[in-house]
Amino acid sequence: MIGVFDSGVGGMTVARAIEEALPDYPLIYFGDTARSPYGPKSPERIIHYSRQNTRFLLEQGARVVVIACNSAASVASDLIRQEFDVPVFEVITPAVQQAIAATRNGVVGVIGTRATIRSDIYRKMIAAAAPGVKVVSSPCPLLVPLVEEGWLDRRETKMVVRRYLHPLKMKQVDTLVLGCTHYPLLRNIIQPRIGKRVRVIDSAASVAAELRVFMEKNSDIGCDMVAGQGNRYYVSDVTDTALEIAAKIFGRKINLELANDNL
Amino acid sequence: MIGVFDSGVGGMTVARAIEEALPDYPLIYFGDTARSPYGPKSPERIIHYSRQNTRFLLEQGARVVVIACNSAASVASDLIRQEFDVPVFEVITPAVQQAIAATRNGVVGVIGTRATIRSDIYRKMIAAAAPGVKVVSSPCPLLVPLVEEGWLDRRETKMVVRRYLHPLKMKQVDTLVLGCTHYPLLRNIIQPRIGKRVRVIDSAASVAAELRVFMEKNSDIGCDMVAGQGNRYYVSDVTDTALEIAAKIFGRKINLELANDNL
Repeated sequence: MIGVFDSGVGGMTVARAIEEALPDYPLIYFGDTARSPYGPKSPERIIHYSRQNTRFLLEQGARVVVIACNSAASVASDLIRQEFDVPVFEVITPAVQQAIAATRNGVVGVIGTRATIRSDIYRKMIAAAAPGVKVVSSPCPLLVPLVEEGWLDRRETKMVVRRYLHPLKMKQVDTLVLGCTHYPLLRNIIQPRIGKRVRVIDSAASVAAELRVFMEKNSDIGCDMVAGQGNRYYVSDVTDTALEIAAKIFGRKINLELANDNL
Repeated sequence: MIGVFDSGVGGMTVARAIEEALPDYPLIYFGDTARSPYGPKSPERIIHYSRQNTRFLLEQGARVVVIACNSAASVASDLIRQEFDVPVFEVITPAVQQAIAATRNGVVGVIGTRATIRSDIYRKMIAAAAPGVKVVSSPCPLLVPLVEEGWLDRRETKMVVRRYLHPLKMKQVDTLVLGCTHYPLLRNIIQPRIGKRVRVIDSAASVAAELRVFMEKNSDIGCDMVAGQGNRYYVSDVTDTALEIAAKIFGRKINLELANDNL
């Protein structure tokens, strides 16, 4: 079973891409809606929550864990890899690879939550792999609440996006990493504001592609292919907003199951 | 000792008013920043967190509990009163009394988080005390994140406030209850947008006044007056944003102590 966790339901953009890439593998999702968002919280708290979420997925039978939350991946993925005896995938590494491959002028923009940008993980990873590439980043803390309110095409949202992207535009980034799983839902307003020639990178599809390669090479990992087995979506708090965003991401009603005994 | 809890640091607007009204009583504050905000969460979750917060305050020696969070007060105050043997004050009852006293045309507006507005508590309490008064309410879920980002005077914030207040203006409210402890920080942009003649009600001062009357009548409650004893401010996660908002509310640096063993 493939286990995926996120601070809430934004990570379902990643779960959906995995389902499309690996339709025969059962997937279990955990969204920590009872304690979301993670972006404004301290690394210590995010690490603590990430450990609990990983433990929950393993208890449910996951053989692979995908951290579908940039805030969690940026501060906790190394520790999760060390502490748990399971392959761990996350959304940052493939985005870094894509950005390095995409940039022509060597100036990459990164937007994300406060936790993600403060961790400086994108700059560090890009510097390690491609020392000539410059990274310009901007924390965008209001975008998660705007997405969660469903204000996907409002004038206010456009103004907020323009303000956040302004410093990146000034630095003439030619590639922009959407460093938060909520942001693909705003792609239509981000693309024209950063510039139509700027390559906008969303790592969901490449995480899924990376995972597919891994699963093909590691068929002995214990992830049985079970045709027709329904995937399961757990959250730590069931709310109308969570149900609405899940339906928006998948294009159909998603049954969210409550799992908060571990909180 | 007077115990005050909130989902985060917004409730410090209430703590500050209590300190001013009752300077000789030691106060202990708990802000659940590790799990904030409460506004988007389900009643079940908010009740669970409110019980834990109350228990923490009582363990620290509180003899009176003030629920300085409208979301928590709206769904949990009755249960907290039943389950704990301690006087419980909250921010809704005094705001209801003030609103009923203030309205001339009998149309009262209420703004708050999704949890507070969905609970319908203001309408129910106003209807019980003054059946002739009509209540028009509007959930304003983006205001807490805007305050927490410090966007107190930005154009985007003004636009969001105008949009949220529009239905209340149409119904010609002459009184507006700020049903969330973050909103007093936006008072300067709310007042001109709802109309300068509309009475804007923030319950912090009246909770404090109510508590002072109670303490004078109940000097045997075990809340010793200890001159010079420092008040203590606990949070479940220490973040830069929490420190900034706390300093903004008190007008001075506040030492936030970490307390999250009970989470």
